[in-house]
Amino acid sequence: MHAYRSHTCAALNTAHVGDTIRLSGWVHRVRDHGGVLFIDLRDHYGITQIIADSDSPAFSAIEKVRAEWVIQVEGRVKARDATLINPKLPTGEIEVYATGITVLGEAAELPMPVFGETEYPEETRLTYRFLDLRRDGMHRNMMLRSNVVRSLRNRMWDMGFNEFQTPIITASSPEGARDFLVPSRLHPGKFYALPQAPQQFKQLIMVAGFDRYFQIAPCFRDEDPRADRSPTDFYQLDIEMSFVEQEDVFAVVQPVIQGLFQEFAPEKPVDANWPRIAYRDSLLWYGSDKPDLRNPIKMQVVSDHFAGSGFAVFAKLLEQDGTQIRAIPAPKGGSRKFCDRMNAFAQQQGLPGMGYIFWREAEDKSGMEAAGPLAKNIGPERTEAIRQQLGLGLGDAAFFLGGKPDAFESVAGRARNVIGEELGLTEKDTFRFAWIVDFPMYEKTDDGKIDFSHNPFSMPQGGMDALMGNPLDVYAYQYDLACNGYELLSGGIRNHKPEIMFKAFELAGYPNSEVEKRFGGMVKAFKYGAPPHGGCAAGIDRIVMLLADTTNIREVIMFPMNQRAEDLLMNAPSDPTNDQLRELRLRVLPKDA
Amino acid sequence: MHAYRSHTCAALNTAHVGDTIRLSGWVHRVRDHGGVLFIDLRDHYGITQIIADSDSPAFSAIEKVRAEWVIQVEGRVKARDATLINPKLPTGEIEVYATGITVLGEAAELPMPVFGETEYPEETRLTYRFLDLRRDGMHRNMMLRSNVVRSLRNRMWDMGFNEFQTPIITASSPEGARDFLVPSRLHPGKFYALPQAPQQFKQLIMVAGFDRYFQIAPCFRDEDPRADRSPTDFYQLDIEMSFVEQEDVFAVVQPVIQGLFQEFAPEKPVDANWPRIAYRDSLLWYGSDKPDLRNPIKMQVVSDHFAGSGFAVFAKLLEQDGTQIRAIPAPKGGSRKFCDRMNAFAQQQGLPGMGYIFWREAEDKSGMEAAGPLAKNIGPERTEAIRQQLGLGLGDAAFFLGGKPDAFESVAGRARNVIGEELGLTEKDTFRFAWIVDFPMYEKTDDGKIDFSHNPFSMPQGGMDALMGNPLDVYAYQYDLACNGYELLSGGIRNHKPEIMFKAFELAGYPNSEVEKRFGGMVKAFKYGAPPHGGCAAGIDRIVMLLADTTNIREVIMFPMNQRAEDLLMNAPSDPTNDQLRELRLRVLPKDA
Repeated sequence: MHAYRSHTCAALNTAHVGDTIRLSGWVHRVRDHGGVLFIDLRDHYGITQIIADSDSPAFSAIEKVRAEWVIQVEGRVKARDATLINPKLPTGEIEVYATGITVLGEAAELPMPVFGETEYPEETRLTYRFLDLRRDGMHRNMMLRSNVVRSLRNRMWDMGFNEFQTPIITASSPEGARDFLVPSRLHPGKFYALPQAPQQFKQLIMVAGFDRYFQIAPCFRDEDPRADRSPTDFYQLDIEMSFVEQEDVFAVVQPVIQGLFQEFAPEKPVDANWPRIAYRDSLLWYGSDKPDLRNPIKMQVVSDHFAGSGFAVFAKLLEQDGTQIRAIPAPKGGSRKFCDRMNAFAQQQGLPGMGYIFWREAEDKSGMEAAGPLAKNIGPERTEAIRQQLGLGLGDAAFFLGGKPDAFESVAGRARNVIGEELGLTEKDTFRFAWIVDFPMYEKTDDGKIDFSHNPFSMPQGGMDALMGNPLDVYAYQYDLACNGYELLSGGIRNHKPEIMFKAFELAGYPNSEVEKRFGGMVKAFKYGAPPHGGCAAGIDRIVMLLADTTNIREVIMFPMNQRAEDLLMNAPSDPTNDQLRELRLRVLPKDA
Repeated sequence: MHAYRSHTCAALNTAHVGDTIRLSGWVHRVRDHGGVLFIDLRDHYGITQIIADSDSPAFSAIEKVRAEWVIQVEGRVKARDATLINPKLPTGEIEVYATGITVLGEAAELPMPVFGETEYPEETRLTYRFLDLRRDGMHRNMMLRSNVVRSLRNRMWDMGFNEFQTPIITASSPEGARDFLVPSRLHPGKFYALPQAPQQFKQLIMVAGFDRYFQIAPCFRDEDPRADRSPTDFYQLDIEMSFVEQEDVFAVVQPVIQGLFQEFAPEKPVDANWPRIAYRDSLLWYGSDKPDLRNPIKMQVVSDHFAGSGFAVFAKLLEQDGTQIRAIPAPKGGSRKFCDRMNAFAQQQGLPGMGYIFWREAEDKSGMEAAGPLAKNIGPERTEAIRQQLGLGLGDAAFFLGGKPDAFESVAGRARNVIGEELGLTEKDTFRFAWIVDFPMYEKTDDGKIDFSHNPFSMPQGGMDALMGNPLDVYAYQYDLACNGYELLSGGIRNHKPEIMFKAFELAGYPNSEVEKRFGGMVKAFKYGAPPHGGCAAGIDRIVMLLADTTNIREVIMFPMNQRAEDLLMNAPSDPTNDQLRELRLRVLPKDA
């Protein structure tokens, strides 16, 4: 018999009754039923009930064990009495009568329990992560993550992609966020950087002639803490393909992601229809570039109905350039109480409020009437035109926001979420995906300059010709995949022509010399025969969060940093030794230097 | 038809004759056969011959293309004349008559050719890695590596292991080599470190109750340059298991590695017999702890035959403590010329020389005689006893080295290699594996102190009891896997008992406080119920090198550093900006500070 176990703690069933076996695992729970001891013995695979009475030679040793001790048990498999069968456990029809026990690893008094799912402060959980991870929920999350990554890999291989590892100690790759730097000992004073993403490397891999690349890639960004992201590193499914257009990328990604979600959340159907929504439409209709399409509400522009109307606030607003009035239809939201609550919500979000109209039965039972101050101000004809445009009826409501879209779009989006949620319009237990396309290449910054609005490496739609016109009219071959209000993936068809790349950067204010300096390796490569190529990157942590139904990223990472970017278990970051600093020729300056 | 290609460059055959098709790829080679142009068009998948004559509307455009331009070709598939069929190419029975061509990416004059396998200086190859990688040999190596990693992963999953990612930005983990440090911006003056290996994390994963872990793990060591290793990072197949003994680890590793080698080098058989060889025996028999067992030569101790003999050098040597005489048998090495050459080899390696005896036919044809100065000095009886012990005969030789084994063992090992090689004894085209076991736990350092000889985390054989005796007599549950003279893998059964761990470190001169400080997270974890566990780590780069039959690690890494730890393509390391240094509160000291 094996030194530690003949079976795992999930293996035994009635077929083993009478067998002499050996198990090893953690003491999940001890119960003393008056001279009969019960231990739930737990390992990675499951739980088996151990029993010992005072006749057992192991009784006195078993009396001493405590929760989370690691023990090895010898014993005989017994069928449980019919009344004691636990149908929830694969081993629930048997128990093991212990004849011997060996303590493999004692446990000191626990700072947090493993049994049960009691909430514990995150500091405690991270300091004793090895205990936290033993808990059922965390164990499941880690296995989910491991299986998700495996499935993604297999799916990519099945689509004809090869995984290549790109460098982790490399050059600074200015992509918007801050680099983590690594001082060089062999070249003191010089620094490596950890990659924010393998963007340049994957493009180089295409230029090197490898057709379809993917990688489960660690990415490093020195970002300020935020609840839903890791302050140091994260993993992405990184993809790049040669000789492709935008739809070719979509055709690879959809089966991979859809298959993944169906595999790991079979109870939540995935709608196979993934609409393409233009970036500007997404902002207009949903107030977000990562819309939650489980919510059927679609906003509309209703400016015409308010222009020159009796509602002076909106009428005046519309006289200014670039302003709009938009409506959020709210089917079944037709009560003053609800409308007032939503108005208050908008005020909490920093807007003056949301005007509304709702349609109720007239007091005299003569039919439907429009209620709310706005309806009075603009009069019945305009009110009715609005109702017809929005397709609303008795018992419904509509909310109105006005101004420059930039200023109210995101609040409108949040209001849409709350309205959908409160009215029960938003579907539960489903995943709805959409491709957000046609991102503008450039935007005007607050100080009036033209800058890239998203990824500078994307190919402008229309190529060089497009760059000769108004930069703000240029769209990029760039896209996101939105799911249930999250951005799951982002990508683009790349600009592989050096002359178009230099021009694109020039419009954003970067001279050629700066481009050569920042992206020298890639620009050089493009001069020696670059294929058209494109790809995307999907956030692994976020995918697992969605599948695990959690909003805390630390629930799906084995050993996460806390929100101050500290590893409480391993004690990082910590003080360097003087020798280390001397070898790197570095000095740490005092706080006030 | 797809915008860029209807087929890849490996897809067309006689079944497509007459079809109108579209291909995209790189111009591998252009040939002008007097008014008929031939292009070998290359992509990731293969090569297709394009042909154009002056009747083709694409002729004048094709005349302009040069090597490594990326082009798209429209044309018709034609069968080649029987005499022009190229049986080496999957597409060798057809060619494509070009009717249209589009240039997708021009190439400037090439700093190195892609066609052909001309040797180029490594600096050029690394500076233009994207060209170097287009070459057939490098392309094949990268695909081999990608497929090896995939196969390893699948094999580990099939054995019931789960892959988990461990942190890359973490705490310093003092394991012998230097850490790469990462300054913290949120905690200026403090530093993270990149992991030298996930050793502590994988042990924590076991303590957290996950039974079988693996990871294709990046490891980071700031090491001084050496030809056969990367100066910054490398990948290992990292494995850990709970509730196991040494043989359990072997039982997992052998099928994985053996299957891998059989998959990727089917022409080189793998002997399924993997002997267990004690570390000390390996040094004695093979002069190395990573023996090349393709070489059948096994050294032996022959001190007895020289003690008190007429060969004064050895006889005197043996009067000192700790000395030995060892013989390297050299079947079929029985000529003075060969023996003198081997003697000279030993002198080149810094030894006074190697004595030898060889057995030849006596000049008077009376039978076999022993020749060489040594034979004369010790006389016929001792010479004959040596011959019998070594099992040698007519036409064979033996070489002798004496002194303290430490001083000559490694030269003896190298002499064994050369002898086996020169005499044609060493098998070709096979992989021979052996487990090297029973490593000593401690060794005496040059200044007479006791220190760990290998991994301090291994469990001493005999546990706490063994630590109460002479440390130099303690063996560890620690093992290497040797293959053809390389160490492919290293591992151990871990010391999971805090009290044994503290004692083991105490013997090596580390007080408890130092252990707590250096390995605090792990030591803490061991106090809360740690299972017996063990594992190993195998070098991915080295495995791929063996399979690719190369000794240069940079041939199997996509974007390697050069030997001065510089990335010539991406320009790393480089100068930080003042802003970066200020945010990190660091100052670079001048050279002479």
